[in-house]
Amino acid sequence: MNAAITEVLPTIDLPAGILAATLARTHVADIVETLNEHAPAYAAEVLLNLPGGRAVDVLDQPELNEPGAILKALPLDRAVSLIQGMSSDRIADIFRNDLSEPERHRFVARLDRETKAALASLLAYPEHSAGAIMTTEFVSVPADWTVAQTLEHVRTVERTRETVYAIYVLDPATGTLQQAVALRRLISGESDALVGSAAARRDPISVSPLTDREDVARLIAKYNLLAVPVVDESRLILGIVTVDDVIDAMVDETTEDVQKLGGMEALGEPYNQIGFFKMIRKRAGWLSILLVGEMLTASVLQHYEGALEKAIVLTLFIPLIMSSGGNSGSQATSLIIRALALRELNLRDWWRVALREVPTGLTLGAILGAIGFVRVVAWQKLGFYDYGEHWPLVAATVGAALLGIVTFGSLTGSMLPFIMTRLGFDPASASAPFVATLVDVSGLAIYFSIALMILSGTLL
Amino acid sequence: MNAAITEVLPTIDLPAGILAATLARTHVADIVETLNEHAPAYAAEVLLNLPGGRAVDVLDQPELNEPGAILKALPLDRAVSLIQGMSSDRIADIFRNDLSEPERHRFVARLDRETKAALASLLAYPEHSAGAIMTTEFVSVPADWTVAQTLEHVRTVERTRETVYAIYVLDPATGTLQQAVALRRLISGESDALVGSAAARRDPISVSPLTDREDVARLIAKYNLLAVPVVDESRLILGIVTVDDVIDAMVDETTEDVQKLGGMEALGEPYNQIGFFKMIRKRAGWLSILLVGEMLTASVLQHYEGALEKAIVLTLFIPLIMSSGGNSGSQATSLIIRALALRELNLRDWWRVALREVPTGLTLGAILGAIGFVRVVAWQKLGFYDYGEHWPLVAATVGAALLGIVTFGSLTGSMLPFIMTRLGFDPASASAPFVATLVDVSGLAIYFSIALMILSGTLL
Repeated sequence: MNAAITEVLPTIDLPAGILAATLARTHVADIVETLNEHAPAYAAEVLLNLPGGRAVDVLDQPELNEPGAILKALPLDRAVSLIQGMSSDRIADIFRNDLSEPERHRFVARLDRETKAALASLLAYPEHSAGAIMTTEFVSVPADWTVAQTLEHVRTVERTRETVYAIYVLDPATGTLQQAVALRRLISGESDALVGSAAARRDPISVSPLTDREDVARLIAKYNLLAVPVVDESRLILGIVTVDDVIDAMVDETTEDVQKLGGMEALGEPYNQIGFFKMIRKRAGWLSILLVGEMLTASVLQHYEGALEKAIVLTLFIPLIMSSGGNSGSQATSLIIRALALRELNLRDWWRVALREVPTGLTLGAILGAIGFVRVVAWQKLGFYDYGEHWPLVAATVGAALLGIVTFGSLTGSMLPFIMTRLGFDPASASAPFVATLVDVSGLAIYFSIALMILSGTLL
Repeated sequence: MNAAITEVLPTIDLPAGILAATLARTHVADIVETLNEHAPAYAAEVLLNLPGGRAVDVLDQPELNEPGAILKALPLDRAVSLIQGMSSDRIADIFRNDLSEPERHRFVARLDRETKAALASLLAYPEHSAGAIMTTEFVSVPADWTVAQTLEHVRTVERTRETVYAIYVLDPATGTLQQAVALRRLISGESDALVGSAAARRDPISVSPLTDREDVARLIAKYNLLAVPVVDESRLILGIVTVDDVIDAMVDETTEDVQKLGGMEALGEPYNQIGFFKMIRKRAGWLSILLVGEMLTASVLQHYEGALEKAIVLTLFIPLIMSSGGNSGSQATSLIIRALALRELNLRDWWRVALREVPTGLTLGAILGAIGFVRVVAWQKLGFYDYGEHWPLVAATVGAALLGIVTFGSLTGSMLPFIMTRLGFDPASASAPFVATLVDVSGLAIYFSIALMILSGTLL
């Protein structure tokens, strides 16, 4: 449901206490779904009526809408105690995105020292970095502990940790990360053995707090981890990123990429919740830039105005030929963007890709060129249209232009993501509309050059 | 690295035994990366030189290339014993995608009865269903067991289960699923209590074997699960889908969607490994369909040939106006495809979206129309081009056409994913090129209708 649209259709609100009672045994993700259908003030009232632990669980869900507004609607004491129960990565996320500076300040002033410190360090890291999405609630033990001691510790802290399935073993002297032990191995280990005996002796996979969340996701997927530790330069653990956080990050990244590929800025909010003018802003920017770029086509056409006057027939195929260039470019750019994202290709592979896209483009262009050629011949022979006495040359022009433009489109489309990456942009910004605009301008020039070659002395 | 391209650059192969020795302590995901750079025959030789458990781990990684060819290159006895050690979902995946029917048969004939049965049931489920990606190696215990008994059982079976972090509690009489217990809760539970006391009494989240893997992923993400049980109609557990499998499925789905959005069939293989002609096949189909669709633009232009002859100036703005319609359509379609995929929108929300896209399209169209109008006026006033005595009307035509086409593009682009879904297609097939083609044809008609209205009596 949809805040922007449903405000005209008022929801009939049960008294919050009654709703809270019916929700008490529901799965937390379903409570979130129900609360998302209501205004923040009402959601806050429901939270007040839930047991404390449940309310914390609800606030901990990244799917909960407007958590900042809900916290503001709660009595300050209650809000602060809930915040102290929440996982630090989620509080940091809310503080970063849903609260203004003075509101943040109001809460921070009341937090206990530990929460305050954890929050300050998380908020210092750039958005979308491992540091910003990590949680500081993990389990670590010194390497001189036994399996039994470690299990006892896990039992004690279980309720307060985001995950206990990965246990980090630290050097007893320096506190640096030595090993990661899986709980499953620990429970089948010898009680009296050292904790490290339950895992391979190799260095655990870890990331720096500045690692991009996409790279963290790639590591977790590649090594099938449940969590990855975030360490500083001296290998002290700062926090962990869990598989849950990574799944949420993957979903967000895909949303951003799909929206960018559509030729716009990423919305950053659900379609049915973003405000009207914010949506216009996200869409109008690229549309205007593309329009200005596309204005070059008018200039190219002005340049060939003489040819257009002499051979109106050339006009008929402009959309056909331009769009084929754009379509082949769009295919190539999508393929390469994805291959780069999956690390199937690296920046230095650009020439391999170019070597592959030229023959691919030529083959695709030959297929489309043949279809275009046959189209002109068929319409002429079937009497649908008369392209004039030089119709075989018109057919040849259309065919050759398609061959040239599809090849050019495939090559341009495949190179653009490399160029964007090299220039430090997200390759997904090399959207289908962007590629189409680039290819349109040069495609028209290709079309008219070929027409002048083939038709000069006859039509032109 | 890239099989298709690197075959011209021979890799210098170490003797397999030496490579195996250097790899013995490496993480299994890194062994896979190394083996992927070599031919299957060589990879098989390296596997022969690794300890059995390691070799099974390597074959269990979905990232390993050509596992079918590797298994074929191994001595049959060895291959069969490795297969029996592997997880059943992975074997099913390899049997389904990497081995021909006679090859499958050769292996199946030698498998033990248990593996054979697990495999047969997995292979019976449709591709991309929960049944096809589930594993049958999970932990379940009857509800009358105690916590201590269950933990003892987990310790015994730990090595042979894909995950032990979710334990499924069954009705002792009927064997149906009653509860899911997290290992973390179990280890902090009372030893003598019944196993079910360590979890909430509510029905666990479960899926049917026919649930699509995308829906499984959504559930796992929503409820932050490490695994979800797959149950039949009588609530007997058939297997589980783990978070690892879901991450792999999410990555695959994103790849498919991005490629479809680019206006092609999903490749189904990495860009740098797919064969040349297979790639042409995946790309040429949509390109040809779009070309044939775009041929309607030539027919529309033929229809307005009289206008084109009288006012060549109209030709100059054809690409500009057409592409703006395509771009606004591409934005809208990407937004809606993603919102549908995230279940932010449902099929029945189409009219809400239409109600939203019309004002959005009008606003965006007004912005672009203003830019287009200013462009014509500026060129005229600055003396870059002479649009004739009626240039204010030309400017008005361009502005009004942009307004109309951007509105039409936004509406068409936003409705297409709903229509595709309704017709049973993947909404991601409503690609930017597809929308652009639809909008091009009707966009030209809009442009010329507006031109006839504004310019008739003067230019036309």
